[in-house]
Amino acid sequence: MLSDAQIARAATLRHINDIAATLGIAADKLEHYGKYKAKIAPADIFALPEKHGKLILVTAINPTPAGEGKTTVTIGLADALRRIGKHAAVAMREPSLGPVFGIKGGAAGGGYAQVVPMEDINLHFTGDFHAIGAANNLLAALIDNHIHHGNALNINPKRVLWRRALDMNDRQLRHIIGGLGKTADGVPREDGFDITVASEVMAVFCLANDLADLKQRLGAMLVAYAFDGTPVFARDLHAHGAMAALLKDAFQPNLVQTLEGTPAFVHGGPFANIAHGCNSVIATRAALHLADFAVTEAGFGADLGAEKFCDIKCRLSGLRPDAAVVVATVRALKYNGGAEKTELNQENLPALQAGLPNLLKHIDNLKNVFGLPVVVAVNRFAADSDAELAAVRAACEAHGAAVSLTEVWEKGGAGGEDLARKVLAAIAEQENRFAFAYELSGSLRDRIRTLAQKIYGAADVAFSAEAEADMAALAAAGLDNMPVCMAKTQYSLSDNAKLLGRPEGFVLNVRGVQAAAGAGFAVVLCGNMMRMPGLPKSPAAERIDVDENGVISGLF
Amino acid sequence: MLSDAQIARAATLRHINDIAATLGIAADKLEHYGKYKAKIAPADIFALPEKHGKLILVTAINPTPAGEGKTTVTIGLADALRRIGKHAAVAMREPSLGPVFGIKGGAAGGGYAQVVPMEDINLHFTGDFHAIGAANNLLAALIDNHIHHGNALNINPKRVLWRRALDMNDRQLRHIIGGLGKTADGVPREDGFDITVASEVMAVFCLANDLADLKQRLGAMLVAYAFDGTPVFARDLHAHGAMAALLKDAFQPNLVQTLEGTPAFVHGGPFANIAHGCNSVIATRAALHLADFAVTEAGFGADLGAEKFCDIKCRLSGLRPDAAVVVATVRALKYNGGAEKTELNQENLPALQAGLPNLLKHIDNLKNVFGLPVVVAVNRFAADSDAELAAVRAACEAHGAAVSLTEVWEKGGAGGEDLARKVLAAIAEQENRFAFAYELSGSLRDRIRTLAQKIYGAADVAFSAEAEADMAALAAAGLDNMPVCMAKTQYSLSDNAKLLGRPEGFVLNVRGVQAAAGAGFAVVLCGNMMRMPGLPKSPAAERIDVDENGVISGLF
Repeated sequence: MLSDAQIARAATLRHINDIAATLGIAADKLEHYGKYKAKIAPADIFALPEKHGKLILVTAINPTPAGEGKTTVTIGLADALRRIGKHAAVAMREPSLGPVFGIKGGAAGGGYAQVVPMEDINLHFTGDFHAIGAANNLLAALIDNHIHHGNALNINPKRVLWRRALDMNDRQLRHIIGGLGKTADGVPREDGFDITVASEVMAVFCLANDLADLKQRLGAMLVAYAFDGTPVFARDLHAHGAMAALLKDAFQPNLVQTLEGTPAFVHGGPFANIAHGCNSVIATRAALHLADFAVTEAGFGADLGAEKFCDIKCRLSGLRPDAAVVVATVRALKYNGGAEKTELNQENLPALQAGLPNLLKHIDNLKNVFGLPVVVAVNRFAADSDAELAAVRAACEAHGAAVSLTEVWEKGGAGGEDLARKVLAAIAEQENRFAFAYELSGSLRDRIRTLAQKIYGAADVAFSAEAEADMAALAAAGLDNMPVCMAKTQYSLSDNAKLLGRPEGFVLNVRGVQAAAGAGFAVVLCGNMMRMPGLPKSPAAERIDVDENGVISGLF
Repeated sequence: MLSDAQIARAATLRHINDIAATLGIAADKLEHYGKYKAKIAPADIFALPEKHGKLILVTAINPTPAGEGKTTVTIGLADALRRIGKHAAVAMREPSLGPVFGIKGGAAGGGYAQVVPMEDINLHFTGDFHAIGAANNLLAALIDNHIHHGNALNINPKRVLWRRALDMNDRQLRHIIGGLGKTADGVPREDGFDITVASEVMAVFCLANDLADLKQRLGAMLVAYAFDGTPVFARDLHAHGAMAALLKDAFQPNLVQTLEGTPAFVHGGPFANIAHGCNSVIATRAALHLADFAVTEAGFGADLGAEKFCDIKCRLSGLRPDAAVVVATVRALKYNGGAEKTELNQENLPALQAGLPNLLKHIDNLKNVFGLPVVVAVNRFAADSDAELAAVRAACEAHGAAVSLTEVWEKGGAGGEDLARKVLAAIAEQENRFAFAYELSGSLRDRIRTLAQKIYGAADVAFSAEAEADMAALAAAGLDNMPVCMAKTQYSLSDNAKLLGRPEGFVLNVRGVQAAAGAGFAVVLCGNMMRMPGLPKSPAAERIDVDENGVISGLF
């Protein structure tokens, strides 16, 4: 079996001018990054005739070690739509550099459903994340420089909220004390680094509608409190103009292609726990403007990713999904039903039946809370038995969702043609009563409770004393009128990673609430969220190499 | 008077394909970064017919607040050579992002002698420095990850030499303690960040002959000592392959243009104090391969920049200069002779005569130590009197150097035609007996003493106890057979920034010696060298902005 890298390297890529041409973009409107990557100014995109494309969201059951294949389905579905004669484009996240050197390998799809050039995309790509890191760190430097040079804003060094960022898995930087040394070397205080994808700049970048909105949101980021409790925003440090200047080029969406030549806008990539986990609004809008179908993806399972896609990204941008695809595998459903990781290749109908309610709950949420047409994509594995597949189909259809078996990893778009047809049918035939899970009229507490009960199936919510104090502080600062961004484990519908399947009767524990005032949401912390990963004992970096001809090995 | 940014913005740039064509490079060999920047694979450059160009080094007297204009002369001389019918190219350093947000503004020339697009070049350019920072920080993460996961190499956390890097002026990160938090959060130890241009990865990048050499040098970097004193190299952590993979694209030289359309390879930019301060070897070789004249530049004054250019860059690469241009101004010479900064617009022949020995010493060094044909470029200012200019000319000619008045800032290449002719004459008529200032046969101590006495004019050298211990450690590790990279103040021929002019009888104080074993030199510390600048009280960042059309203001 060929590796992802071998498949990608064997592919013959089309020049990016040709890919752009399929979207009606003239070559002279492209900012080329080599022959296979380009950026396009939003103004040039939106000056083209508008297609008013349909927006298809790909989401999944709760993630498991068995893997679901959400990204491959996203890419394969767009390829399949194109194979059956539809004009489709992908909008997806850029991968972070950090995990490449750890365990995970790349994040540009897999098998015959990849975006390419995958090595470029997985390494520096067009430099967007470096620009985002630089903007983050310029703000950090300006805050400490302000404190160092007289601190006219009376910033309390113990209440600086803004952290530094690096696109690297480096646990050593999670908790640091900076500003040590002599008088000229800053002011000592506790600090730390997050991985760049966890920076609020990343979330702002992905939610901004245009450069002016980007700048306004950057300025609105809450970075510290003064000694008297006054909130300090990035604009108070006059940081947002220079930050936006650093982001000006990065903000233009990146265009690449799938292995089958389908255009793909790969742009932005915020964390899916402490942020909203979707590619940039501008990339999604670009795909919808230039193609008849835009296939996009949200992070983690539907309880986090699809919910944030609807309640944050769509609410803040005005985007509206036309259908949702829920990706599942028989293996992952059996795992959710209690089967051991080592025994997922054996038929196990009881485990499957025990795991299915996880999928059914997500279908219910998407259909009945968000009001969307839903299709289930079962990513087929050789070991799946006919009885197992029939059981999945029967359960989903009973819940009003069409089911398609997909084989996009092995077959590319050809393995997703049935899914493509079912998605088209769902859009044409199922009613779309799109709604948010909650309105902004209530309190932060109301919004959290609504999500916990309606989406997760919780019995109740418990707020820690710290969370209560946080919510009071946000209310005092006038920052409690935003959507909530739930930061909980992705492995369960609950806040306990061990509660697989479809847990009920649990209490969701909220331990803190933080403002991402520029992004425009309040982060609700349910458990310890990792914002700076570490490397494993035997990191992939040790096996990555490049030869004298520039050929990289060991990357995937 | 127009600002540099206004002049640059008003220019009509030629497509980079046209610039490349003047060097014989076909458009399909370019990796485009938009319309005005491109990278070219070294293999594609060196596959073209070889021109065996002449190498012209632009250097200067010791820097002063009055400014000398070395970069503008570099660019203007290449433009001038082209105007008089010669086939010339520029090879120069990329600017660092950090200083852009402080005081300094851009570093891409000035007036009508600039490389463009200057805003791109001064911001992220083609991402080279971000790639270098990422490679630096991957190594740092691997070191701490190794210590965290059992420390099989027995690295002494108190003897980790490798620091982290950011391309930002951030004094807060000079001295930190990292690895705080819980058991899973690394091992607490003192650490710190340097600005990316001060990373040894930058020096390695700029001295490597090809990708294989780059990887070998990365592996040879000394990063720590074990508890028993054994040196630990990057290769012991298996870091160099992945680091080289991160640098693969960055290692390809960048091609841009001057305002007059002269091709310019702008690539790499190591610090000129703790590193050697010249653009990459690969960019210089590219310019020499493809043009008849390559004009390049070295950092600081000739005592540091030109010396390191010859003794480090040329020695390690096999490059040989054909002529040296020493840039001076009447104003800076008067400052060197004791005139006040506020009175430099008044004729002051005694101050000029007192300052001239600084210039004459550099001429002596270049002619008699390095054996090079020398031309003095006097960057003319309106306030310079005829008597002052005549005095400079007479003194230089008496020392065997031709003198040219240049006005490249105001007039571009037209202001440097006389200089161009004099450089051609010097190459044709003056003898080239190129030699290094010292040989590698002696000890580290011998090399330092030779430079101090021969180049700086010192009476003696004093080594601190720490420096003695450092040299003993390097000898024990077998790392004492390298050229020396002197890190002293750039403002004086001595190690005391206040000793202007041509000091004599002083003792050079060496306080430490560090191995840059991958770059291939020993850094000799004479005074405190700043490796991470800070921002001023009113940083330029506060005034930088970008409008809704992407037009940046306040950058210069």
